[in-house]
Amino acid sequence: MEKLVAPNTVQTTFHVRYAETDAMGIVHHATYLVWFEEARSALMRVQGTSYAQFEAGGVSLAVSELDMRFISPAKYDQLVTIECHLSVVKSRKMTFEYKVFNAETGQILVTGATHHICINREGRTTRLPKQWIDRWQNP
Amino acid sequence: MEKLVAPNTVQTTFHVRYAETDAMGIVHHATYLVWFEEARSALMRVQGTSYAQFEAGGVSLAVSELDMRFISPAKYDQLVTIECHLSVVKSRKMTFEYKVFNAETGQILVTGATHHICINREGRTTRLPKQWIDRWQNP
Amino acid sequence: MEKLVAPNTVQTTFHVRYAETDAMGIVHHATYLVWFEEARSALMRVQGTSYAQFEAGGVSLAVSELDMRFISPAKYDQLVTIECHLSVVKSRKMTFEYKVFNAETGQILVTGATHHICINREGRTTRLPKQWIDRWQNP
Amino acid sequence: MEKLVAPNTVQTTFHVRYAETDAMGIVHHATYLVWFEEARSALMRVQGTSYAQFEAGGVSLAVSELDMRFISPAKYDQLVTIECHLSVVKSRKMTFEYKVFNAETGQILVTGATHHICINREGRTTRLPKQWIDRWQNP
Repeated sequence: MEKLVAPNTVQTTFHVRYAETDAMGIVHHATYLVWFEEARSALMRVQGTSYAQFEAGGVSLAVSELDMRFISPAKYDQLVTIECHLSVVKSRKMTFEYKVFNAETGQILVTGATHHICINREGRTTRLPKQWIDRWQNP
Repeated sequence: MEKLVAPNTVQTTFHVRYAETDAMGIVHHATYLVWFEEARSALMRVQGTSYAQFEAGGVSLAVSELDMRFISPAKYDQLVTIECHLSVVKSRKMTFEYKVFNAETGQILVTGATHHICINREGRTTRLPKQWIDRWQNP
Repeated sequence: MEKLVAPNTVQTTFHVRYAETDAMGIVHHATYLVWFEEARSALMRVQGTSYAQFEAGGVSLAVSELDMRFISPAKYDQLVTIECHLSVVKSRKMTFEYKVFNAETGQILVTGATHHICINREGRTTRLPKQWIDRWQNP
Repeated sequence: MEKLVAPNTVQTTFHVRYAETDAMGIVHHATYLVWFEEARSALMRVQGTSYAQFEAGGVSLAVSELDMRFISPAKYDQLVTIECHLSVVKSRKMTFEYKVFNAETGQILVTGATHHICINREGRTTRLPKQWIDRWQNP
């Protein structure tokens, strides 16, 4: 289940998969990056486009920097909500901010941010296509 | 979205995540095992229980054998449906069968089966708890 | 460490990573497919080529079928050896067989086989390039 | 191949696995966290202990915060070296710093840091065991 909760802000909710846990009995910390990425995909879907469509234009959004803060661990089979907010859109960079929380109690589990640059098929940095900047700056 | 479609048979539907693809541009073949497992979890949820509850009894379902057949590749952002049917429940073994299909076209992508044994906390083979056998044999 | 131990047969040895475990405290069953694949890569490396070079020719080896048998679980930090043998090379298909064992005790943990077809950049089935068939049929 | 290159500093070198790539044709950004973790394991091994032994004492090192910077992408089959330096050891926290580089050219690919707290089997924050603090403060 995914829904737009504010301009450029999506919430997507799903169950924690068993494969996402590790021998500590909790979700492995790298998993949250996969969820962040899935929330970016969900944001584009609820806005009526898709990241596949973005890449079809010959460009990709590469992650250039990120940070994460782990507050409380997610566990197998829990329902988690990822909130993803697109907070910065410039000609050459974008920033997304995230909150992961327990969908039932609202408890915050993880927060983070990812910074992106736009690259072309040769892997070179390039400007974001104008139509996408417009769409995101006027959501 | 997950629903019971026949006795001991669930269908669960979700979008393919970007991290599930590989450099061939399609879903990595190991990913389908993660989806199979998630479908087993979904089956228990739509039956009103959970695999977490099963494990809380001190036992686990370890995979003893599996096979998979790959017909057509899933791609990023596609909506896929995993159908999972619990086809064999004996005192010491269980078998689940799977079909992965494109949720929009119905095209079959992957089929497979996993065979499981029940193990205790020491990793020894043990009988399935009677209340779970009953539940699954009389769904 | 990887070495050719017989014609078309490699052994590659490495430590189990923490991320490869799950909440059962053992290696997640999908991980072995990643190790099988890495052993195929190692086989090509010890034969003086690489799978990257194979793909540079415009073709890929897609997995068409596989089976696995789980005998004893691998655990975090264990040294494991994957033995991979290329057992069938035909114009349109290849089969690899695998044994995973505890590198210190020799105990067999998992066995399996993967069957592959050759596909081109459009995802269509095609013949294996002749020079690769020759190389593998006369190792 | 892993070796101690300075006090509390390890370098571990391995090939990029195919499953670690994504549809952009490069290593998925979450993969580097798995490599960071593997480098922490390697550090303990080259120091004659192991993280398994640490956990056998009833405690774990949970990740509390992390940051990463992506400079250039790693690619399939490349030989990469992860350098991991334990830079802070206090009674209640540890920091590790990382550099991932192309093992053949020395080019820096990714840098990062992970901050850890010590937790017990109930998931509560606790002091690092004194013998481990001593070992790491006097490497």
